[in-house]
Amino acid sequence: MRFDIVTLFPEFFASPLASGLLGKAIARDIAQVNLVNPRDFTTDKHHRVDDEPYGGGVGMLLKPDPLFAAVESLPLLPRRSVILMSPQGETLHQRLFEELATDYDQLVLVCGHYEGIDERVRQHLVDRELSLGDFVLTCGEIPALALVNGVVRLRPGTVGKVESLKLESFEQGLLDYPQYTRPAEFRGWTVPEVLRSGNHQAIDRWRHEQQLARTQTRRPDLYQTWLGSQNSPPLPKGTP
Amino acid sequence: MRFDIVTLFPEFFASPLASGLLGKAIARDIAQVNLVNPRDFTTDKHHRVDDEPYGGGVGMLLKPDPLFAAVESLPLLPRRSVILMSPQGETLHQRLFEELATDYDQLVLVCGHYEGIDERVRQHLVDRELSLGDFVLTCGEIPALALVNGVVRLRPGTVGKVESLKLESFEQGLLDYPQYTRPAEFRGWTVPEVLRSGNHQAIDRWRHEQQLARTQTRRPDLYQTWLGSQNSPPLPKGTP
Repeated sequence: MRFDIVTLFPEFFASPLASGLLGKAIARDIAQVNLVNPRDFTTDKHHRVDDEPYGGGVGMLLKPDPLFAAVESLPLLPRRSVILMSPQGETLHQRLFEELATDYDQLVLVCGHYEGIDERVRQHLVDRELSLGDFVLTCGEIPALALVNGVVRLRPGTVGKVESLKLESFEQGLLDYPQYTRPAEFRGWTVPEVLRSGNHQAIDRWRHEQQLARTQTRRPDLYQTWLGSQNSPPLPKGTP
Repeated sequence: MRFDIVTLFPEFFASPLASGLLGKAIARDIAQVNLVNPRDFTTDKHHRVDDEPYGGGVGMLLKPDPLFAAVESLPLLPRRSVILMSPQGETLHQRLFEELATDYDQLVLVCGHYEGIDERVRQHLVDRELSLGDFVLTCGEIPALALVNGVVRLRPGTVGKVESLKLESFEQGLLDYPQYTRPAEFRGWTVPEVLRSGNHQAIDRWRHEQQLARTQTRRPDLYQTWLGSQNSPPLPKGTP
């Protein structure tokens, strides 16, 4: 799977793309990440990528022409989407990562910068707009990196075992259950007895109850969605 | 403002902390970012930071002891919060960034990894849990980076003009209006007439209408919240 990141700061990506599981996945060619700088596609002698907004206002906007030229310079794979990372877009969520990991061979990610981007990029260059969340960052590079990480994580070979993916939170629509590892006692805080019982039926039940209770408490919105998807009766009162 | 990032992959942060506006803010000492590796606080000869989950299951968990030792090694500033980056936490949003930028001198960010983290870290080491969104990444480093960026952006001196912050989306509770810069005509697509009219009252009205219409169409949830906060009548039908 190929990613093309259109960015004014290609140097931003050097260490994140080389470290951890994402670094390993790229080293094993599970994903290819190509960086392209719109500044290399300017035609004036000052290599200008930004200009003032029409109608006034503070801050600078990204000009349309270098962005169009940068995207149009890229090879075109069969199943491709051009995505603008922008707080105006659809909020990233797990099902979207699954769709992107399955349905596309090439994702072109355009990173916004400065005060914004010329509207004609939004209207005529990109297929969709995605947002990391309801907050403002100084740049679109972090959202692009999150997208690459979350999508590559779902490609075969990135995470060790397939089960390891399937059981995780949001892929079930519930938060994770509490997990414990050695030591069994740490500063007087012990691992719950049931997890050391060897009774796998009891462990599974405890974990499922914990997931339901935690989701209901912390994220009633997710819990309601999960309930709807299950057509199961609500958690009885008094469940821990 | 001081950030301490507790991470197994300190090398991840090298280039993102050195580039763009965040890199400039750090260079100008608006923020200090310190990296601490729990692996340096292991006491066994293999420097082991992870172990198998009690009760069975795939994947490895972060052990509690190196994380406690790493956090406890840090200097303690007066207004400090220890935050676990985890998909189980409260979702990051702009008001939370504002709170963190205003109320704290030191934020300690613990990055999760592998399948998860020993529950005792959640219960006894951290003050709160924050999540980047409803999706799974291979690591907590990207969420930590987003938090540092979003918080440092709000500190005086990071972004050029104060107005430049105030007008932005989410800080008003609305999406941005469309923006245009030169050229006035690009591939036959022109800048809307009103923005070139010089009539600032008309421009302000157009922009506000665009914000309302765009928020209502793309993010009805934000629009409803905004309406509630304004006590103003809903957008009349037929508004562009």
